[in-house]
Amino acid sequence: MFIDALIEKIKEQNNPTVVGLDPKIDYVPSFIKEEMFQKHGENLKGVAESILKFNKTLIDSLYDIVPAVKPQLAYYEMYGVEGVRVFYETCKYAMQKGMLCIADGKRNDIGTTAEAYSSAFLGKTKIGEDNFEAAFDVDALTVNPYLGIDGIKPFVNDCANFGKGIFVLVKTSNKSSGQIQDILTQEGKSIYEKVAEYVNEWGANVIGKYGYSSVGAVVGATYPNQAKILRKILKNAYILVPGYGAQGGTARDVAHSFNSDGLGAIVNASRSIMCAYKDEKWSGIYTEDKFNEASRAEALRMKDDINQVIGT
Amino acid sequence: MFIDALIEKIKEQNNPTVVGLDPKIDYVPSFIKEEMFQKHGENLKGVAESILKFNKTLIDSLYDIVPAVKPQLAYYEMYGVEGVRVFYETCKYAMQKGMLCIADGKRNDIGTTAEAYSSAFLGKTKIGEDNFEAAFDVDALTVNPYLGIDGIKPFVNDCANFGKGIFVLVKTSNKSSGQIQDILTQEGKSIYEKVAEYVNEWGANVIGKYGYSSVGAVVGATYPNQAKILRKILKNAYILVPGYGAQGGTARDVAHSFNSDGLGAIVNASRSIMCAYKDEKWSGIYTEDKFNEASRAEALRMKDDINQVIGT
Repeated sequence: MFIDALIEKIKEQNNPTVVGLDPKIDYVPSFIKEEMFQKHGENLKGVAESILKFNKTLIDSLYDIVPAVKPQLAYYEMYGVEGVRVFYETCKYAMQKGMLCIADGKRNDIGTTAEAYSSAFLGKTKIGEDNFEAAFDVDALTVNPYLGIDGIKPFVNDCANFGKGIFVLVKTSNKSSGQIQDILTQEGKSIYEKVAEYVNEWGANVIGKYGYSSVGAVVGATYPNQAKILRKILKNAYILVPGYGAQGGTARDVAHSFNSDGLGAIVNASRSIMCAYKDEKWSGIYTEDKFNEASRAEALRMKDDINQVIGT
Repeated sequence: MFIDALIEKIKEQNNPTVVGLDPKIDYVPSFIKEEMFQKHGENLKGVAESILKFNKTLIDSLYDIVPAVKPQLAYYEMYGVEGVRVFYETCKYAMQKGMLCIADGKRNDIGTTAEAYSSAFLGKTKIGEDNFEAAFDVDALTVNPYLGIDGIKPFVNDCANFGKGIFVLVKTSNKSSGQIQDILTQEGKSIYEKVAEYVNEWGANVIGKYGYSSVGAVVGATYPNQAKILRKILKNAYILVPGYGAQGGTARDVAHSFNSDGLGAIVNASRSIMCAYKDEKWSGIYTEDKFNEASRAEALRMKDDINQVIGT
């Protein structure tokens, strides 16, 4: 079951964080880019191969200290079919190394189409009469709740059937998230509170042995006050917290998403780890060893920063 | 400009409809499937090739009578990397045949990531220093508004810069769409009305020569009363109408999304056209000619059905 596996991994490594793999070509160090452009040309293929090498190098540096990766699908689709292949290869590589893989795709659609998305990422796809294959086969997927339960149900079914997980957008980290999410309803609740109540309902049948559900929620680190309210409403949901680091969220901000047992949340950082090697303290030393050292140091710094505040 | 091109195509063919390409392997006629499974095996590759052939056959039958196709990304992602390649090939083929291509992906994310999605489908992706490439390069994309303006702005910028379009989910066709979209706010408006007002704002700077904006809206045929309200609020938005046919929406239902000029909406049908050949009147005759005849007849029937009600 996804949520149990996630919690066990977090406990084992004493690290409630996830590394976002949102690789723009500008993030890739020159020692990788030059090799790949030379081999494949300065084109979508060359970029995709650069990013694959970059991701694998990052995973190699981090797999024994960070429980999970969160590849953001947009950054792979941006490089076309080759980019999507690299998304597939990246997920496979991370999972082979023992990391959990949360695909950040914010997928959403009506029921029959949500089934197709769920087959793509969590379940299996029908091929022949009794022949099914997994397409991308990650551990969990982020989803958007705007269509209500029949767009969510297919994913929840695959959480139950295949031991997978989802994280439903509740309060996103961006500046304008309030335009819809903060609107007050006639009963005096905000939309994000209503969505959090739905998340409780939607996840009620996939609760694991630690009391948490495989249906989690996304709540941005940039909204600590809302996180405080949401942590109370979300009885069994694990919270995936974006917005730490480069987006401005601090350890103190993310602390509100955790429960007193030190569990209940997993904090994402992308750019700060992927681009750790660009910090001036590593500057000028663009080798693979130094790159590994930089990303590892930043991942450990983040882990300590967060553990200090949640008091585990 | 996307919206002008769409309107001109609709006028030229006197047909305000779009064919959804949401191909499950079960939809593909056996004369295609058998050939492709034999060539590539009964696996993801064999299915993907079957679907590509199926799509091309459909496009060949329809390109001179239907203005646009709407491939639904979920049905390609479901078949993995090979499926995504088939999505790419399908879009390219349809556009070469002169059809407009609306990718139905319901993408959404925070600003910087929405930029990546927009580069993937509407804009261009940075490769080297002064080197940009288009990844999927369709004419328009559906997007989800849950994150507010900063998740939409990057798409609108590419509408302006590259002559593309978007359709923002406002009121979706599924049964549970009201769970969030119908919630009443303190000012007595529903969320879908609020989103429609945002759509007006977001699209105000990309209005074409016919008075319509390249920022359109999605309103399901299954909610005719809401469509009536929304048509009034959405001053300049073209409405993309799913839910006609297999989902239960009738011509009378979709009529509310049109303006009195006979413009303002484009109605999607997927299954009823893709699976037209399965209707009993064609049964037993699974050849390419009969397949073409069936899809063409259904597309023309739909066109007449809708034109009759909007009175053009």
